[in-house]
Amino acid sequence: MPISRSVKDALGSSSMIRKMFEEGNLLKKQHGADKVFDFSIGNPDIEPPDAFHRVLLRFAQEDAAGLTKGVHGYMPNPGFPAVRDALAKKASREQGVTLDGSHIIMTVGAAGGLNVVFKTILNPADEVIVPRPYFMEYKSYVGNHEGILREVDSLPDFNLDLDAISKALSEKTAAVLINSPHNPTGRIYPAATLRALAEILEAHGKKTGRYPFLVADEPYREIVYISGGTPPVLAAYRHSISVTSYSKSLSLPGERIGYIAVNPGIQDEEDLLSGLIYATRVLGYVNAPALMQRIVAELTEESVDVGVYARRRDAFKTVLDKAGIPYANPEGAFYLFAKVPPKKGGSTAVTDIVGDDGAFVNHLKQYLILGVPGSGFGKPGWLRFAYCVDETLIRASGEAFKKAMETWV
Amino acid sequence: MPISRSVKDALGSSSMIRKMFEEGNLLKKQHGADKVFDFSIGNPDIEPPDAFHRVLLRFAQEDAAGLTKGVHGYMPNPGFPAVRDALAKKASREQGVTLDGSHIIMTVGAAGGLNVVFKTILNPADEVIVPRPYFMEYKSYVGNHEGILREVDSLPDFNLDLDAISKALSEKTAAVLINSPHNPTGRIYPAATLRALAEILEAHGKKTGRYPFLVADEPYREIVYISGGTPPVLAAYRHSISVTSYSKSLSLPGERIGYIAVNPGIQDEEDLLSGLIYATRVLGYVNAPALMQRIVAELTEESVDVGVYARRRDAFKTVLDKAGIPYANPEGAFYLFAKVPPKKGGSTAVTDIVGDDGAFVNHLKQYLILGVPGSGFGKPGWLRFAYCVDETLIRASGEAFKKAMETWV
Repeated sequence: MPISRSVKDALGSSSMIRKMFEEGNLLKKQHGADKVFDFSIGNPDIEPPDAFHRVLLRFAQEDAAGLTKGVHGYMPNPGFPAVRDALAKKASREQGVTLDGSHIIMTVGAAGGLNVVFKTILNPADEVIVPRPYFMEYKSYVGNHEGILREVDSLPDFNLDLDAISKALSEKTAAVLINSPHNPTGRIYPAATLRALAEILEAHGKKTGRYPFLVADEPYREIVYISGGTPPVLAAYRHSISVTSYSKSLSLPGERIGYIAVNPGIQDEEDLLSGLIYATRVLGYVNAPALMQRIVAELTEESVDVGVYARRRDAFKTVLDKAGIPYANPEGAFYLFAKVPPKKGGSTAVTDIVGDDGAFVNHLKQYLILGVPGSGFGKPGWLRFAYCVDETLIRASGEAFKKAMETWV
Repeated sequence: MPISRSVKDALGSSSMIRKMFEEGNLLKKQHGADKVFDFSIGNPDIEPPDAFHRVLLRFAQEDAAGLTKGVHGYMPNPGFPAVRDALAKKASREQGVTLDGSHIIMTVGAAGGLNVVFKTILNPADEVIVPRPYFMEYKSYVGNHEGILREVDSLPDFNLDLDAISKALSEKTAAVLINSPHNPTGRIYPAATLRALAEILEAHGKKTGRYPFLVADEPYREIVYISGGTPPVLAAYRHSISVTSYSKSLSLPGERIGYIAVNPGIQDEEDLLSGLIYATRVLGYVNAPALMQRIVAELTEESVDVGVYARRRDAFKTVLDKAGIPYANPEGAFYLFAKVPPKKGGSTAVTDIVGDDGAFVNHLKQYLILGVPGSGFGKPGWLRFAYCVDETLIRASGEAFKKAMETWV
């Protein structure tokens, strides 16, 4: 076979999602894009903030005037020193610990950052513990570097199940991977939960001699609806690493710009930092895109208007409430994780039913509503709606949801 | 150990190069940057062409005026359709075959592209044949995806040794990896050589049922000093893939923008293209940086002034000729591969000596001349000088080279 067996297998299993996209596009062609309630994709539709456009324009003008030199060339693999310094200040504020530029590695988005981290810390067959449901690409990011993703359940409210994590720990555990605010549930892990997790990991490290890293995937850290923001992982646990991007906070997902923040005083700090830089190089990223590095360093106080997402969230909750579809109340990010409702005439004990999410997604499709089955996140019986679409469309979907529920029998 | 064993090992072995960089920086601090003849790094110092700055400015102005929508957001993983179409036209002209947009995958530089290709085609323990000397990162790019780099010798003039390649072929051979114009020798493989290689690969495929891919790493394809340009690989062999970037041709290495061009009619074309797109996604690249995609699509007729490099090459050749240091005559790229000269009073039969490249590099350093040992490219007895530095510096190095040779005893 000319292509890799594992890639060939993956193509087979991801063809369902591809088919879903194709069907969605077909529906839009048939009915008009504004008639299809497409909540399937997490592609922020909000434009970057004005400050982004201003900085881009200023840099472009300086370039055109010949005032810059070498700014599109290679810089050290972890990024421009001035950019790393600026982001260290930002990360220090957010994470409650004092970082300097050496603790920041600029990356090709958070996805690039996670691959760099796993390349650096995983030996073959090492395990990374992740709470279910989870963003399915994690399996690839860990598998790319010969690691094994070890899934554990979350609590019914989708907070971390510390007992489940504790039981999954072993000498093969290289890391625990968390994502807060969480895709697909919108859950934000409270500071007390992070502290309790840290105690468990510390105790495990003391006993086995191997302290698991706590890797926090935080691209949604600034999209928050509750007071207090996203509690910092670096302040909670010594051996923690935050990976984030500007894909959501500045609506720049296509520009692939993010960074890794490593906790000062983390175990084997020097080797770890050198390893992350080495991994950035040999994985072929080489460095994060130069122009975007310089731009985000100027925008450490900026983010998109979270109020827009908050209003959409409220509108979507109203729609689902009226339709009688239960969901987890989102505290951050721009996803709503809904439970497949019981069929009319079926049991009303909603909490005991694992509904057929594939069937419900297909049923909704007849009413031109597109979502993603929870099975795609390791959580059958649920489905994800992404509300990074216009509020008008969300409101307009109310009627379609109601009709869909009437015929869900 | 908290970090991966293989990364830890790699850090140990790459510490020599790091040490060299540090020493170079120290020398510049001690003597002043303009007094150190730093030919160690292949970082193009020529600024991007004016057309790049013009297009960047136009796009930035359109952004600031609110005329764009979603241009910094996600697009399909292989790139914006219009960009792929534009580059398919360019690749068709250059490669002598007719590609459409579906054959182009936008990548995070050529290094990103090579990782995507190897992720897609390699099964564990599959082999990739590469002629020596070679860019040492290739070993990582192949090893990242559990493949094995199989080195073969080149001819004395650094053209491909077809017998050596032929002998190295086996049922484990997934690909032959070539790089033309070549780093570090500047060699360009002639069309007749590529045709002969294609015949060998075809015959091997017919016999074993496995046609090796011919993967061409072509970031220097437009930096050419001989007539006729870089002969196309896609026209030469059906199962060929070109990987290239704008790092050298537009002097944009820090922006990480390149692409893969897949030969139409290649074996299992549909699976291969789907696999490359899948690999782009799961390796964490997700897509090539959005703004740079749009910019390079506007610049398909542009490149930096190759004349600048040609004049530097001539100046450097004069310097080495006068110093009596033999070298391979570069036909492209911006490297000069020089042979460690015999010590005074030693044998004069230069061609039979494998000199100590590490010792010679250290000797040159005393005269503030920095190069890279050929051992770093799998070719001891040689050293690489990168001439992407100002011509004045090259000319000024003549005296230092002469003095260095007088004391090479």
